[in-house]
Formats: sequence, structure tokens, C-alpha cells
Amino acid sequence: MRSLGASKVSLSSLSSEELWRKSGRLEGRDSEFLRLQDRKGAKYLLSPTHEEEITSIVANAVKSHKDLPLRLYQVSRKYRDEARPRQGLLRGREFLMKDLYTFDVTDQQARATYEQVRNTYKAFLDELRLPYLVANADSGNMGGDLSHEYHFVSDRGEDNVIHCTQCDYSINEELFIGAFERSMAAPLWSQISESINGGEEIERVHLDQHGIVSGPCQSTVFMTKDRRRRVQVVTPRDGGVINIYAVKALVPDVDTSIMPFENSIIDISGDFTLVVDQRLALQVGASRLAALSANPSAPQPEIIYSRASILTLPISTTPCPTCRSQSLKLSKAIEIGHTFHLGTRYSEPLSAQVLNSENKLVPVSMGCHGIGVSRLIGAAASLLLDDKGLNWPLLIAPFSAVIVPGPQTRAEDVSSVYDALTQQGPEPMDAVVDDRKRSLGWKLKDADLVGYPFIMVLGKAWSERREVEMQCRRLGVKETVSLLDLGSKLDGYSKQL
Amino acid sequence: MRSLGASKVSLSSLSSEELWRKSGRLEGRDSEFLRLQDRKGAKYLLSPTHEEEITSIVANAVKSHKDLPLRLYQVSRKYRDEARPRQGLLRGREFLMKDLYTFDVTDQQARATYEQVRNTYKAFLDELRLPYLVANADSGNMGGDLSHEYHFVSDRGEDNVIHCTQCDYSINEELFIGAFERSMAAPLWSQISESINGGEEIERVHLDQHGIVSGPCQSTVFMTKDRRRRVQVVTPRDGGVINIYAVKALVPDVDTSIMPFENSIIDISGDFTLVVDQRLALQVGASRLAALSANPSAPQPEIIYSRASILTLPISTTPCPTCRSQSLKLSKAIEIGHTFHLGTRYSEPLSAQVLNSENKLVPVSMGCHGIGVSRLIGAAASLLLDDKGLNWPLLIAPFSAVIVPGPQTRAEDVSSVYDALTQQGPEPMDAVVDDRKRSLGWKLKDADLVGYPFIMVLGKAWSERREVEMQCRRLGVKETVSLLDLGSKLDGYSKQL
Repeated sequence: MRSLGASKVSLSSLSSEELWRKSGRLEGRDSEFLRLQDRKGAKYLLSPTHEEEITSIVANAVKSHKDLPLRLYQVSRKYRDEARPRQGLLRGREFLMKDLYTFDVTDQQARATYEQVRNTYKAFLDELRLPYLVANADSGNMGGDLSHEYHFVSDRGEDNVIHCTQCDYSINEELFIGAFERSMAAPLWSQISESINGGEEIERVHLDQHGIVSGPCQSTVFMTKDRRRRVQVVTPRDGGVINIYAVKALVPDVDTSIMPFENSIIDISGDFTLVVDQRLALQVGASRLAALSANPSAPQPEIIYSRASILTLPISTTPCPTCRSQSLKLSKAIEIGHTFHLGTRYSEPLSAQVLNSENKLVPVSMGCHGIGVSRLIGAAASLLLDDKGLNWPLLIAPFSAVIVPGPQTRAEDVSSVYDALTQQGPEPMDAVVDDRKRSLGWKLKDADLVGYPFIMVLGKAWSERREVEMQCRRLGVKETVSLLDLGSKLDGYSKQL
Repeated sequence: MRSLGASKVSLSSLSSEELWRKSGRLEGRDSEFLRLQDRKGAKYLLSPTHEEEITSIVANAVKSHKDLPLRLYQVSRKYRDEARPRQGLLRGREFLMKDLYTFDVTDQQARATYEQVRNTYKAFLDELRLPYLVANADSGNMGGDLSHEYHFVSDRGEDNVIHCTQCDYSINEELFIGAFERSMAAPLWSQISESINGGEEIERVHLDQHGIVSGPCQSTVFMTKDRRRRVQVVTPRDGGVINIYAVKALVPDVDTSIMPFENSIIDISGDFTLVVDQRLALQVGASRLAALSANPSAPQPEIIYSRASILTLPISTTPCPTCRSQSLKLSKAIEIGHTFHLGTRYSEPLSAQVLNSENKLVPVSMGCHGIGVSRLIGAAASLLLDDKGLNWPLLIAPFSAVIVPGPQTRAEDVSSVYDALTQQGPEPMDAVVDDRKRSLGWKLKDADLVGYPFIMVLGKAWSERREVEMQCRRLGVKETVSLLDLGSKLDGYSKQL
């Protein structure tokens, strides 16, 4: 933020509903707000983001093009009434976020600012040294027409990113599907489009009396949001990844936030919806239908045939729009940041205007950019976790190193190691001494759990040769080093953490 | 916090009502909570403080006396549904607080911790160099039996502190009144007690037909909390400061949070309550009573004669309990901190126990200690404000100095001043350069408004003799200094800021 010349602010988490009504975002996101009233009945919400608040403040503070560019950020708690908070820090109702708001006179200047922020975010992620993707994204509810998502690649993720393994093309699932559907008739997609619309035979699949689906198909089970109804999606075998947006269009109350599972059996004891891909023809055995309708007062199944769109994404057979190679891949990902070029989406309704150099009143051009701080911590933890404990990237480790003295180590010796770590070497590091009254074994186990990048043990090697035993579990390092060599050794390893 | 060996934590602002029910604090403070429900109807509140939360976390994490002492603090937002948020940062519904929670094995150890914290708070306030009082305080709703309040002396304050001008005796109004009332029969207070109960004649005062109160009395007007009813308190002339606690005991819905004003006229057009001190006898003129009862459907006045307690505090005539001199004084004050020794008030209901050195399970002994960060900023601002702008104490100034170059100043010159400020001298300071494209006059006015402790102007003296014009409005300093002398000059002035 400093490299962008951004100033730190601190906005209220209590936000008046009135302000959100002005921007037109109150009703649309109704269900996500945590709302409350004060003793006088005035209506507030706990802000999930601060475009409205900061724009109305800036509207009052900024009058001339000379006051711009302005870049304001905060690190503060945000709130969202999640349907199902889960995975610890990855999805909570209260979370820490760094949000940056940028204000420029012209759209062109705002787009240049956007590029600066994007590069800054990438530089930060480079420093974290964890695998990430920057995906073209949809601006959605936020407004604007230029947007990127920043993702860690992780099986624990709930987002899907489609990216090319040969070039740096990367796009979020929603946009990919949008592009895919828009281009069904366009030349780039003709190959797939042909195979879907004409080249392929419609396959017959069968639902037998035991509720087992058979034939050249696979069956995936979702649940509705109220947990009461299964939604079973039947698609061609090896058809690719389920297009959840297409499923959602057919069954609006399907819950896409929990992982679906594959199952070829339909349990008829409860309510269920069967969604069948247009490339399949479902045959339901007579005895099966009889079983289903034997008790008319029992919940009846609903069978939906998808006619408009196919229910899977043929990712591996689709050429990359950038390099044209057939190297697209879908990866599970954890979104940890998002940048938006907003233009005048908020400055217009909230009257944030300045006199430009021609003395004309113009709405300012904005951007907003966020990094989920608590989520990033949770994601980094989950990415580097092993069976002994956490492993923190050096950049965000609470301490880069822990010094673990043995029970007989003298205090001066501990100090000399501490000084060597924190004051010498090309890049001095922050360190903490574990001086708790516990055994050496207990402390080492605890240090592994906590996940310090480096553990410095003052054990046998220290008492014999005044050498520190340096451990770095992530790199598989365990070696003894003299204090003189410590700096250069650490420097080498640090570049990999 | 570092000097106390305290570790920083970050607790959720959303707190479950259930936890507060366990500690018995849910119902008592009902009206102060901002409450909300999530989409499933689960009940939450926005925490005004975190004893419940931290005690329940520590209860799960701490098992042995070897895990103690433990000191945990946070700097986070707190919430309170204030009846009337006012005075900017001084009383808001959302505010920033530093709260420290301490955990010891024995009560004795916890009391030693309490003294350590008290000294740390005093050291911090000493460094701020603003007039403050540390008052003995009541633990009230918080629990425990040892407590102090930390106040800035300020006419804008809403608290009353009674303190001795000859010694360091200092006590909050509530405790003073408690002690005063308890000791009405005790030797120390015999002098006042005599003059009240026997020595003084009961004085007659008169309410005439125009609603004017006359006689040897003064009349002070309060309002009820719903703003609908005036409460007029009639006390002997020169009787001293109104004892708001006594008034509150007689009229529970009186609003003591707004400043009362003196007025000898009672407006009969609305509802009102007249509270009369026991040392006075009120005579109401016959025509006045007739006017009041002429319209029986109109709101009727209520007249309350105080019989149990006197309605003023005879502060100036009361001897100081410590040095016995008659030097007590009541000062308006802004409370900016509070320390509490809690003992087992929370550890017992929330089962925070450890095995002590004799292997016996005991509840931990706790303390909690807070500094109102946003309130302290507001208070410091209001204390040092003058007609040109703010003046920040050096300790909490956003920057200690601003460098204001003239329009012709070369960038290298600005750098050399910046380096002299931030790298040389016995105590290098943080500085900011005002490089905005504005005139020198505009920038100087702005620097005064912002309230930097030091303003360094690179003007005429710089271009002629390479001397900086150093300004410090708070100390009335405006002088030119060479870069060589800058460090020692600043050092001298800094000790007074």
C-alpha cells in the first residue's frame, strides 16, 4: 500500500441502510447482510465492503482535480451473513480484509491506477511464494467492466479457475461459461459446438427399479439450500466438469456451496429432482415408475430435461483462447483477492465530483481492490500444513525463527544467538526465544506445530562446538551451523520460503 | 503492552448471547447492547467488552499453573448502543479500545499484576504529557473489588472526579458519594453531618404564580431520558455541586448524560417534576396551584421532597480523607482508561481452572484493563485545540514533523532536511514532506490545522542561509536553525510535548 502512495483510514463497520439504498445495493444483497437496529429503531448493517461509505466521505472532501489522485485503504473487519460459515478462517461471518479505494479524474487515469494495483498485488503474491492464479473475472454486483480475481490453487478451494498450462490465460468459471455459451456459434468453439449439436448421438440411459442409473453416464448429487431435497444431475460419461451455473439455471434453489458427490443410486425415500443432460435420453423402468407413484401422498420426483444448455464443461477439449493449444485445465482454488475498475458506478449516485482542469464538474473514476487477510492466513495455513503442524511463508510468519534453548543453556548464549539472527546478515530476521519452563522435546514439538520457518536448537552441538542446530521442516533441512555462517545460510534458504 | 509481556490477540466482535447469559451479564446491561440475529435466528451481540469471550477461550487452553501468568491484549472495535452518541470520538456507538486480560494462579499474584498494569498505564499517561487523574473507582457491573479510573481533566468531560489539590487523593464521584453517605455518622464527616442535620435552619423558598422560584436557593434543570419532562432540582444557594446520584435515586428516568443548566423559572406549559432538597421548604402560591390545576386534563406537576439524602455535595468544606486539608475540588474529566482486579468473577462461572503447584484445581484470578483509544484521541484533540487547529502530543502525532518546501526548493534540499530529522539527533523522529501542488501559505495553514508538533519551513532563511524555519505553535516557537543544530534543538522542545 505504501508503494502505491495509499493512506490508511479506518471506516465504521456500522453502516446506515440509507447509504446502501442510495447506491441501489441494499435490496439486491439483502440476504447477505447482518442487519441491526439501535434503540431508536434506526436501521444499520454491518458493512461487508465500503464503497458507499468511502465515496460519500470523499464526495465531501474532494473538490478539485488537484486533490486527486487519492488512494485510501484500511485493514478492518467485514461482515457477511454466510449461509454456512465453514473451513475456519476461509469462510466466516466476520473476517479481516484489506480494502483499497482509488480516485482519479479520468477513466484513463483510473485504468492506469488499476494496472498499478494489479502489479502490486502480483508482487505481493510473488513474495508469498505460493502457487497462485490471476483470473479474468466478472464484476458482478460490484459494478464496472474490468476485474481480476487472485487465487491460491488448492483442493480445499470452493472456486473453479480455468487456466491454460501452456500460457498465462486464466479465467474464473463464471466468465468461462459465459464466453463458452456466447460463442457456441462462433468459429473458435465450432469444434465443440459441432460435437455437441450434431456429431454426437443421443445416448440412452436407464433408471432401474432399485434406483440405479446405468448407461454411458455419470450421476452427481447436490442438495437444495434447505437440505430437504436431493438434486441428482445425470451427464454423459467423461463429459467433463459439471457446469454448476447451468444446473442453477434449471434448479434455482440448488446449493452450489457444498461439494457434490458422485452416486449412481437414487434413494426414493425422500423428495428429489433428477436433472438430465440434453445429450441423454432417460428411460425409466415401468416398475420403477410404479414404485414412485404407488403412494400419491409421498413426495413425487421431478424430472427436468436440460434442453437449452449442456450440463458439463468440455474443458480439456476446448482450445485456449490465447495460445490455441488444447491445454486448458480446471483447478480448485481459494480466492484471496479481487481488483475492480469501477469507473463512475458509485461516484455518480453519491455525487463524488471534482472540477477538472477545464473547470468542468465530472464524477471521479474509481477502483476498489481487496485482499482477504484472514482468509489468506487460513489458505496459506491449509496449503503448507503437514502432519507435524503448520508451516508459515516467511512473509507472514509471526516470527521467522524460534530459538529453543536446552535446559542448561546460559542466558548469554541465548542472547548471542538472538543477536546474530536479528542484527547480522544481509536480511536480519525477527526471532522469538522459547523460554518457557518445559522440556526441550515438548518445545520442539510445539515449534513444529506453530510452524516457524526456522527452528534454532541450542542442544548438543551448541554445548560441544557452539553450533546452532538449524531446522527448516518445509525444506527438509536439519544441520548445525556456527554463528558466523548463520546469516549467509539463512539468506539462501529464505529465498525458497 | 510489550513491557508487560502481553501477547496480542484478535477476538470476534460478534459474540453469542449464550456466553453472556452464562456470566450473568446478559440481562443486566440489556439496553446497552447492539443485538442482532443471523439468517437462522441465532442471537448475537456486538461485544462492548470481552471478558466472557477470552475467559472461555483461556478455559480451554490453560490447564496447569505452568501455563500462567498469561497476559493477552487486543486493539479492536467495541460497540455500545449509546442513548445519545455525542462529542465525536468521545462517545460513539462504535469505538476503538485496547483491552488487556490477565490470568494468574493466586489472588495475590493477580493483585501484583494489577499494580504492574497500573504503573504501566501511568507511565503511558506520563509520556502523553497531558494533565490526568487516577481515581479510585467502583467496580460496578464488571465485578471485583479493586479498580481505578484514568481521566484527563477537561471541561468537555462528562465525569466528575473529586481530588485533593494538596495530596494525590483522587476518587470518582460515585465512590465519593458512597463514602460520604456511609460516613455521615462517622467522626471524619461529623462537621458536615452536624451542619446538615442540626446546625442549619430549614430555609423557606417560594414558587410564585409566574413559575419563578425565589429564596436562598438555586434551581437546576435536567431532562428525562425521553426528552418529554423537565426535572427541576431546587437546592440551597451555595450548597455545592448537585449530587446526580441522589437525584437519580428520586427520579430514575432523569438523564444525567446531558449538562444540566441553571434556571429559576419553571415553564408550566409541559410536564415537569420538581425535586426539593430536604434543607428547603417549598411554598407554592395559591394562585400558582390554581393555575396548575385549572385544566385537570393537562399534565400535572409532581413535587418530590428529598428526605433521605441531601442533593448537593459539600466538597469544598469536606476534609480530604488522606491529608485532612480542606482542599478537595471537583473537576470535570474525560475517562480514558479503567483497570479492574476481577479475581474469580468470570473464571468461576466459565470454568477457567488450572491445577496449582499442589495439584489442586483452582479458578484462575483475573484482571481486565482498558484504554479507550479513539476516545483518547478525541480527548487529546479537544484538550490541545486552539483557534488555528489541532495540536497533537508528540507520542500520538501521526507524524512528529511536517516539512514544507517553498515552490522553488530543490528536491535534494528537501531530502537533506528529511534525513536530518529522521536519521540524526539523539531521538530521530518521523516526518512527512508536504509535496502537494499548493502554495506555501495554503500548506502552512493546513499544517496548523492538522496539528503536527513541528513544522519545518524551507523558505527565505533556507535560500539565504540554508536554515530551516522551525515552528512549534504549542510552545510559541518560531526560529531558524541550521541542520547541524536541528537535532539538539528538537530534543529540548520534544521533552515539553
